[in-house]
Amino acid sequence: MGPRAGSGASVSEDGAFVAVDWGTSSFRAWRMAADGTPLAFSRGPEGMLHCASAGFAPVLRQHLEKLGATEGLPVLISGMAGAKQGWVEAPYLSTPCRLDRLHEGAVRVDTAGDVRILPGIAHRDPAWPEVMRGEETQILGAIEDGFSGLVCVPGTHSKWVALESGSIVGLTSFMTGELFSVITSHTILAHAVETGTLPVRPSEAFHQALSAAVSGQAELSSALFRLRAAQLLGFEQRADGAARLSGLLIGSETAGAIRRYGNKQALRLIASGDLGALYEDALEHLGYEVRADDAEQTARRGLIKAAKGLWKERFR
Amino acid sequence: MGPRAGSGASVSEDGAFVAVDWGTSSFRAWRMAADGTPLAFSRGPEGMLHCASAGFAPVLRQHLEKLGATEGLPVLISGMAGAKQGWVEAPYLSTPCRLDRLHEGAVRVDTAGDVRILPGIAHRDPAWPEVMRGEETQILGAIEDGFSGLVCVPGTHSKWVALESGSIVGLTSFMTGELFSVITSHTILAHAVETGTLPVRPSEAFHQALSAAVSGQAELSSALFRLRAAQLLGFEQRADGAARLSGLLIGSETAGAIRRYGNKQALRLIASGDLGALYEDALEHLGYEVRADDAEQTARRGLIKAAKGLWKERFR
Repeated sequence: MGPRAGSGASVSEDGAFVAVDWGTSSFRAWRMAADGTPLAFSRGPEGMLHCASAGFAPVLRQHLEKLGATEGLPVLISGMAGAKQGWVEAPYLSTPCRLDRLHEGAVRVDTAGDVRILPGIAHRDPAWPEVMRGEETQILGAIEDGFSGLVCVPGTHSKWVALESGSIVGLTSFMTGELFSVITSHTILAHAVETGTLPVRPSEAFHQALSAAVSGQAELSSALFRLRAAQLLGFEQRADGAARLSGLLIGSETAGAIRRYGNKQALRLIASGDLGALYEDALEHLGYEVRADDAEQTARRGLIKAAKGLWKERFR
Repeated sequence: MGPRAGSGASVSEDGAFVAVDWGTSSFRAWRMAADGTPLAFSRGPEGMLHCASAGFAPVLRQHLEKLGATEGLPVLISGMAGAKQGWVEAPYLSTPCRLDRLHEGAVRVDTAGDVRILPGIAHRDPAWPEVMRGEETQILGAIEDGFSGLVCVPGTHSKWVALESGSIVGLTSFMTGELFSVITSHTILAHAVETGTLPVRPSEAFHQALSAAVSGQAELSSALFRLRAAQLLGFEQRADGAARLSGLLIGSETAGAIRRYGNKQALRLIASGDLGALYEDALEHLGYEVRADDAEQTARRGLIKAAKGLWKERFR
């Protein structure tokens, strides 16, 4: 008999619930104890895009088995699995949105057991339409109750999120990661970036490009071209191309966010690894005091907070 | 015997020279009379990228035959054929650069007959490095002697060029055309643009996006994401996606150029067809009075002006 059939285990041994961070191209799940300790971890490449054709239920079942999750253990999912093109749509909540009520928007999936998906958040302003799905759970996991300030979640589509007293009130996305990828793969700047210079690490070239972007002189699509021209004319080296491109995009993102939300707020960064180190360096170089939290940890913590709202009895 | 062997023809019947506009991905040539009348035209897809591997001389020879050009007819080439990765490098002239002296930078090709390639122009400012190759010849063809003002040459890499008394003094490139292409082909915005909505034509959606970009609110990489979000939230239609993306990119380009060069200058546009009509509409919508010239005609006229400097005796 597999572990899911282990009927003799007590609630505390089984854990309180299974937390799932189900993104566009990745899957991560933890079997969680009531005190917030992860008891088991399982990850895979079966993101929303994969499952949209291959199916969501079998992927979840397989990971639950791997985690040793018993039949009765409820599952809470955040991320793109709740998108319209995902498993079951968990419609966006609207700003202003209290994060401590995020769980109230969770949608139950018509499958075996108690499986729920957390909603994303939309800023339904026709002059500034915005959406996110997944980052709101990370932010819930990063902030203390009643937090006011600005949170940056870098990535394919970096998010800058403004909060007042624990409510999300504003949101701006930047296509930083995706633009870096397509520009280096599919434009003339492919010639301006050396393979082997990724991941980008803080350097003088990175700092120069950051400062140039923030100065506002550098309209992005012209700054991109000058990166190539500078190499053609011998002012800059190809080995620095990736750092300069990254500096331009991150600087442009930061300047845009600060212009919109002001620069006197508490600033939090949610990121991991090389990307986190790069943003932390960038924000410090630009003069912002930032507190950084790990992306995976905050996702897990956000799922715990939301799960406590949904299944109070399991956390007593 | 082919026309190139027709030794009995007089100079005026043969023409004065052959004008060649040899771009990255296209070839256009005219056999030109001394009075500027085109006597024959030949075009092909054998641009610089093609010829860099397949060879330049055979392509030119084939087109000269098609044009009925006699052996002694000199050939003047502008464009990417003179790039480092082209046929023979015609090194960039530096700003400030008098366009009526552009021909002095022409480089002779070691091949049969008198074949010369016009140089590009570089702005060798480490804080604003810029290059162009081909557009300088079009600008020479578009302006009157001693022109002062601003010239826009839209395209894959749009150029905005500042002139004082017939000299190029400043230059900014925008990756507008290339970004439009990679964004609609390779990013999440592929879902926000309908095939069949190209070429973009002036519309209310185009004008709204133009104005939003020019207002400066819209940092480009965030404005791009909002284009997608607006459709997800039902504020905008996919059928307008291409027009809005185009408006964002062209508005961002125009705003960047005007910020750098000021807005009280004579403004010229060098473009053709749908793209020319779109830019003309955009600039008028943004309140600029613009005179438009055809891209192909200005290239030919610029080549004539430069040829007169090189081969005075043929234009008597």
